[in-house]
Amino acid sequence: MIQYFKSDKPFALELGGVLPQLTIAYHTYGTLSPARDNVIWVCHALTANSDVADWWPHTVEKGAFLDPERYFVVCANILGSHYGTTGPLTPDPVSGEALYDAFPTITIGDMARAHSLLADALGIGRIHKLVGSSVGGFQAMEWAAQEPARFENLVLIATDAKASPWAIAVDETQRMAIKSDATYGEKRADAAAAGLAAARAIGMLTYRGPEGYNRTQQDLPGASLSDLHRAVTYQRHQGEKLCNRYNAYSYMTILDAFDTHDIGRGRGGLQAALDTLTMPAIVVGITTDIIFTPAEMRLLASRLPNAKYYEIDSPMGHDGFLVEHVQLNNILTQQ
Amino acid sequence: MIQYFKSDKPFALELGGVLPQLTIAYHTYGTLSPARDNVIWVCHALTANSDVADWWPHTVEKGAFLDPERYFVVCANILGSHYGTTGPLTPDPVSGEALYDAFPTITIGDMARAHSLLADALGIGRIHKLVGSSVGGFQAMEWAAQEPARFENLVLIATDAKASPWAIAVDETQRMAIKSDATYGEKRADAAAAGLAAARAIGMLTYRGPEGYNRTQQDLPGASLSDLHRAVTYQRHQGEKLCNRYNAYSYMTILDAFDTHDIGRGRGGLQAALDTLTMPAIVVGITTDIIFTPAEMRLLASRLPNAKYYEIDSPMGHDGFLVEHVQLNNILTQQ
Repeated sequence: MIQYFKSDKPFALELGGVLPQLTIAYHTYGTLSPARDNVIWVCHALTANSDVADWWPHTVEKGAFLDPERYFVVCANILGSHYGTTGPLTPDPVSGEALYDAFPTITIGDMARAHSLLADALGIGRIHKLVGSSVGGFQAMEWAAQEPARFENLVLIATDAKASPWAIAVDETQRMAIKSDATYGEKRADAAAAGLAAARAIGMLTYRGPEGYNRTQQDLPGASLSDLHRAVTYQRHQGEKLCNRYNAYSYMTILDAFDTHDIGRGRGGLQAALDTLTMPAIVVGITTDIIFTPAEMRLLASRLPNAKYYEIDSPMGHDGFLVEHVQLNNILTQQ
Repeated sequence: MIQYFKSDKPFALELGGVLPQLTIAYHTYGTLSPARDNVIWVCHALTANSDVADWWPHTVEKGAFLDPERYFVVCANILGSHYGTTGPLTPDPVSGEALYDAFPTITIGDMARAHSLLADALGIGRIHKLVGSSVGGFQAMEWAAQEPARFENLVLIATDAKASPWAIAVDETQRMAIKSDATYGEKRADAAAAGLAAARAIGMLTYRGPEGYNRTQQDLPGASLSDLHRAVTYQRHQGEKLCNRYNAYSYMTILDAFDTHDIGRGRGGLQAALDTLTMPAIVVGITTDIIFTPAEMRLLASRLPNAKYYEIDSPMGHDGFLVEHVQLNNILTQQ
């Protein structure tokens, strides 16, 4: 069940500006132990929400790595998102109007500090395990760098310590697609729907990659040129699906935040920041991931003081972390 | 120097419809031998033109594989393109108006048949070597399947015998970006410029891939968050550059043609068509190409009756075929 944490204190942002109020939507699963030592905190990816049991199949289950009979699992919706936490569609407390494209630029650091307030409010001190995949891994690394003593274990899946030029280029391309829809900037939740659909289609390319598409989107036998290619209908469908559940302003806000990610900023550089993450860490790459390639994931593991590297063997690209729950549970229940 | 072939005969299209006239822009380099046995025909990629010496550095040079002292090199602009051949911006001979988005859907087969007319008009019978890279390779395979006896040798670089679901998904994503610009459909050459820029940025992602971007677009030392990331300015610059030299209607026409590519169509299937290509063939893949992956290129070579496979070792992705001229010349001057 979705719950809300509300704070009426102004929340100052890393790049300037203040959010006058803060609401954070979150889910919990299982029970906090009397010793408060069984917390697993999950950081979600780009367009996901706080209901990790819904978007990450077969993880919040008995025997799985987020077993609710053993752990108190918390997942909170990120700042700027569409799913209950303060974002571009949130009415301003004074004007009553949402900010849309005037919502301030936030950073991954802001996302982490907001969730730290929620953890405090929930009476959670130390966190047994902090888990993040994709941009959720950005948050996990940033939060761990902000409060290294808070976390006993770190799990980083298909992610990085700093946004790469490649990932930033993918984001900028999505921004270009959104802005090529001239309705971007109109003060309504469904502005720039065509641009957002195209942006999502770009994202899907990078989430699935060549092997993912070639394995799942072959035309059916007997298809003729008068039929749309399956890969065409798939891209359109993915675009429409996102438009029905998300908004272009939250999407832009999170893309912008993504690009600011660099845990070395203000900490003497990347390696100095990584050196502070001395807790045991598990780093998981995916063989066909073209966003966070296995080579980059191995490099990340090698630069962390106390990390083990595992690889998911999957043709599904970056989305392998959502699909290959058997391999993932096998890896993560070892820790 | 650009030259033009003009035909006033109607040109019937594979999917229906007729072009009332046909103009083909082309370049030649070197001299046709008295025996007419030294022709190398180059098929260009998506947004290139007939001036192969310009867009393919260090290939039309003494000692290179398109040595104009030895060969009579021909490159013709493809049907639907922006560079002199009949396309969406060509005025209709009756109305005097260009067709823009009403230009008919063409196929790779149409492109090949148009160039076959040009070869005939130039007095060229057999062609010593047919070379194609990327969508140029689509044309080369299709033309070779149409007239297998015409070609003595075939060179296929970073291409395929059929458009893959992945490549079609990339194309559809570009179409979505172009159409999210509501000026698409306006009857002017610079319609949908923002959409075309976004589409080009998508294309660039796939041409360069993760390694290409991470190698060339790292932020400069000392860059701060108030500076735009280099990867951001690169994507915008690539989009603008294409808008200054191309048009959205030609781009869409060629994307659509790309998706129709399947040399097995009407020939009893892919392998049956490949079996007819008995001339010696060289197939070249690029280690980091994410459009036509090395695995797919190896498969293509193995399915051709008489092909040798070579691989360019490059971090530059699909664009490796434009960049790695030393390796390419080494491979192709062996044949």
